[in-house]
Amino acid sequence: MAEPVSDDVRLHGELIGRQGSRRDLNTPVLVLELEALDRNIARMADLASQAGLRLRPHAKTHKSVDIALRQLAAGAVGVCCAKLGEAEALAAGGVTGLHITSPVVSAPAIQRLVALNARTERLSVVVDNPENCDALARAATPDRPLGVFVDVDPGIRRTGVASPEAAAELAAQVIRSPSLRYEGVQMYCGSQQHIESFADRKAAIVDRTDYLRSVIAALVAAGAAPAVVTGCGTGTHRIDIELGVFTELQVGSYVFMDDQYAACDLTGEAAQPFERSLRVDARVISANAEMLVTVDAGFKAFSTDADPPTVAGGAPDGARYIFMGDEHGALIAPGIAQTLRIGDPVTLNVPHCDPTVNLYDSYHVVSGDTLVDIWPVTARGRSR
Amino acid sequence: MAEPVSDDVRLHGELIGRQGSRRDLNTPVLVLELEALDRNIARMADLASQAGLRLRPHAKTHKSVDIALRQLAAGAVGVCCAKLGEAEALAAGGVTGLHITSPVVSAPAIQRLVALNARTERLSVVVDNPENCDALARAATPDRPLGVFVDVDPGIRRTGVASPEAAAELAAQVIRSPSLRYEGVQMYCGSQQHIESFADRKAAIVDRTDYLRSVIAALVAAGAAPAVVTGCGTGTHRIDIELGVFTELQVGSYVFMDDQYAACDLTGEAAQPFERSLRVDARVISANAEMLVTVDAGFKAFSTDADPPTVAGGAPDGARYIFMGDEHGALIAPGIAQTLRIGDPVTLNVPHCDPTVNLYDSYHVVSGDTLVDIWPVTARGRSR
Repeated sequence: MAEPVSDDVRLHGELIGRQGSRRDLNTPVLVLELEALDRNIARMADLASQAGLRLRPHAKTHKSVDIALRQLAAGAVGVCCAKLGEAEALAAGGVTGLHITSPVVSAPAIQRLVALNARTERLSVVVDNPENCDALARAATPDRPLGVFVDVDPGIRRTGVASPEAAAELAAQVIRSPSLRYEGVQMYCGSQQHIESFADRKAAIVDRTDYLRSVIAALVAAGAAPAVVTGCGTGTHRIDIELGVFTELQVGSYVFMDDQYAACDLTGEAAQPFERSLRVDARVISANAEMLVTVDAGFKAFSTDADPPTVAGGAPDGARYIFMGDEHGALIAPGIAQTLRIGDPVTLNVPHCDPTVNLYDSYHVVSGDTLVDIWPVTARGRSR
Repeated sequence: MAEPVSDDVRLHGELIGRQGSRRDLNTPVLVLELEALDRNIARMADLASQAGLRLRPHAKTHKSVDIALRQLAAGAVGVCCAKLGEAEALAAGGVTGLHITSPVVSAPAIQRLVALNARTERLSVVVDNPENCDALARAATPDRPLGVFVDVDPGIRRTGVASPEAAAELAAQVIRSPSLRYEGVQMYCGSQQHIESFADRKAAIVDRTDYLRSVIAALVAAGAAPAVVTGCGTGTHRIDIELGVFTELQVGSYVFMDDQYAACDLTGEAAQPFERSLRVDARVISANAEMLVTVDAGFKAFSTDADPPTVAGGAPDGARYIFMGDEHGALIAPGIAQTLRIGDPVTLNVPHCDPTVNLYDSYHVVSGDTLVDIWPVTARGRSR
């Protein structure tokens, strides 16, 4: 049975409002359905635990201290961050076991990284370049070594070393540096995550995992056997677990799900292991046309790197959302202006969760229809 | 001659750093070139003043108290806001003459609007619906009337009344309401602003201005002659000034310019009256491929509703940017990895300024190569 909750809604201790209906929230608003979130967190934790794998969810998705702490409480060893600024923000909120999955290269950023390493436990970062490895080794100190993973390019040409030989050389360089702590190897198959067919995705990952095995063999031969092999995403988690090469899962989007992952068969059995927990509630603000109503959510309310959002509720069946500029969208359906009036709320799905979350300062957390909390998007905009 | 400046960089009075080279900024960073900004502000102010028109720049573009105050100092009568939350944030910074260009419809939002009207001078909002007009009239009070413009749809079907008759009826309703102050009429031709050919844009605007004249005639006939006819955008400002129907200009993007407006001939003479003042500086973080280097700016650093950003500087001629996901992009050019090393900064243009600005917490303001100030993006994320 759930604990009885107070009527107060507090933002980190400060009273910011009273519980009320989701319908009454100012819009557009990023709504997080608490029970669905917690079920997603528990399901992924169970999958990792049953497989005997470390779970280090990617926090670039949620950028939230509150969600990271829930993931840690469910057994995660830490969280991943895409950027140093994200890691700084989460560390300030008490999140530990932070791993930065992109190289940190400039002199001012390396200074910040070393300073962060002094005030948080078990920080790590990737390297894919000997010069960068040298710079990290010079900036860090042996009394407080910085954790380092060698990043391997799976063929995307985004980050990572380009060959098993380069991985082995870089790992040896890390091991020779007394101010660095060699943690292992990272390979993230970013472009495979959203292949919609499970069979096609699996074929691609089997191929990339063969390559990863050759990288690990080169590391072992160089005396740099990786204690941790980190990578994996929500799209490939079942496949990666089955193939058994990764020892740590960096899954991110499973906490929320979105239109992109809803289009992917994640299990090969057309069953989705995770639920949508994240939506955007918007509101009709104009209804002067027959087939169309205008809502208060546009380019500043949804990321636009994917298809426009699908409609989750509040509108007639078959209603379709189109963007109408920075601040507006339209819902289109026959006779919709007879069904929806100005002021009516509608619920939209999230096209791509990570960059959509990055548009908002806070999650409005609901249980059923009721607002129960507001959580800041702690690291919003912390891309530096 | 410019005033001598101190070495201190202060954010609203608080010392946050020392002046230094733009090259040393943590990236990705939104860089505002101060002299170009001020020249743009002055040029538009001159154009409006020479034509005898009111200037009320749209602050949805910049969301900045600092820029709004510069626009007011150059003669603007106020600034426009797309959303109530924007207006609240700018009012708190001392910006007056705020006009909200989208309807405010829900009961909680109308409460906030009336509260804002009590604490700021000359606030106005649009209406396009009699029910909404009634709700505003009931919430406001005759001792502190709320300014109201009738919003006219130019045929986009986004917001606005759909006919001259509907405009006249709504204006009469506003005039009958003692708690509302009838300000005039608004028509914004959003879909015409980015027509690239000046002649095609002009033909479209001539047609829409004929329609606007018919709306004004209906208002005059109903005893609701508009004191102010507000609208216009950066794309159509020359045409709107020449046609002489608008009495107030809502131009926004001219302060920054962007790739979208750079592709438009704004004068009919292939001369751009405004300069680019806004860029994103990014940094090479990986360079393990021959034709490609990876930079630290992706979907969270640029809006993605337009084409990817063009390259402004720091990279070989002909280098092209492509998105590489949420956090990364690539610069592609033959042999680029021989020219650019990890840590090197590159400067990118802004594809579409409004939603790009909305991704950042602050402007890093430079004079030449030197950081001279940091201004908050005051109303960032204030879409509610």
